[in-house]
Amino acid sequence: MTQWVITVMLVAMPRWDPRAEDRLREAALELFLEHGYENVTVAQITERAGLTRRSFSRYFTDKRDVLFTGSERLPAVLARSVRDADSTLAPFEALLTALVDVAGMLADQAPFTAQRRAVVRASPELQERARTKFAAVTDAVADALRDRGTAESEASLLAQVGVAIFRTAFERWTDQPDDVGLPARIREAGAELAASLGAVEFAALPPARDAMAAHG
Amino acid sequence: MTQWVITVMLVAMPRWDPRAEDRLREAALELFLEHGYENVTVAQITERAGLTRRSFSRYFTDKRDVLFTGSERLPAVLARSVRDADSTLAPFEALLTALVDVAGMLADQAPFTAQRRAVVRASPELQERARTKFAAVTDAVADALRDRGTAESEASLLAQVGVAIFRTAFERWTDQPDDVGLPARIREAGAELAASLGAVEFAALPPARDAMAAHG
Repeated sequence: MTQWVITVMLVAMPRWDPRAEDRLREAALELFLEHGYENVTVAQITERAGLTRRSFSRYFTDKRDVLFTGSERLPAVLARSVRDADSTLAPFEALLTALVDVAGMLADQAPFTAQRRAVVRASPELQERARTKFAAVTDAVADALRDRGTAESEASLLAQVGVAIFRTAFERWTDQPDDVGLPARIREAGAELAASLGAVEFAALPPARDAMAAHG
Repeated sequence: MTQWVITVMLVAMPRWDPRAEDRLREAALELFLEHGYENVTVAQITERAGLTRRSFSRYFTDKRDVLFTGSERLPAVLARSVRDADSTLAPFEALLTALVDVAGMLADQAPFTAQRRAVVRASPELQERARTKFAAVTDAVADALRDRGTAESEASLLAQVGVAIFRTAFERWTDQPDDVGLPARIREAGAELAASLGAVEFAALPPARDAMAAHG
């Protein structure tokens, strides 16, 4: 579906400039960091990029879209990758395989991610938007795991944990993009978490403080 | 701090009625489920509860507060419990111990949680609010783990996973409150996740689809 839309757009835009989108994004991120996201207008972005409002509208619906473009595809792409993973894999293995798989597609985002994170971190509105995006990814992944036969509640838990691993790996990669790639960061975060959880004796956890313990 | 505020309020309210808050909450939840959260007014809630607007204002700031009251204490309570956990415990053990500990304090919420979840699930505005609440809990827990000496990034990952375990356990408990208590549900979800992660060979995950694999 998304593929079709993109194809049609390319055909309909003879003056499409592959660098215009990057120029607009660079200009926007610079301005957001300089003046704060809330204080920047689309007019300022297009002026700094040396492009028109019409160019801007070709790539983005509004200034917020500059930060989140592409992310609307992530839920569907990740869910498909989970569904397509080898049917013999256990649920969490299928999920991690999908995360590593999709990570490869994000390589081109590396130059922008550090600045983007700084902008989002400074704005409660953008943080909320980012949370909504992550929730959409989590829901899509949970649905895909259910399609593979994982029980409802377990699918939701694994999806949340998979997204947490992905976010952690993404941040580490953004902080030090030249050290190792995002796929390696995903394996690292997953292995770290497995070690932390593997060390816990769940039956030996102390009981709760009050009456609930009687039921627990 | 919160403790002080509550104490002062109790002293200043001679006609405080411990059942008024529950009556208002019950009336609100009924109305939200009947008419949809967005369509219910505070006047309707107080009318159904047979109480005044002034009574309502004693317990809640607005109708949204009916659903989230108490949750503003959760980040601080959970963070303190993480900090207070035995200093010999590994980070994730300290976190799980704190979750089980705090779970005991939520026993009185059981009668409302199933209805509350149904209301929140039906409203994008409330879902967003719930996500903001969970993010605040996650941040507070991550800070507490850092205070115990856990590295920044690992603390954030463990906090996200801890919150995912808590949410899963809370939902299972809400769905079948009479089966076992919330603390047992937390241990169950944690053990399930440990088993899922323990089965993965992280180094053996297939490489990513494209150029990123070269870095990974």
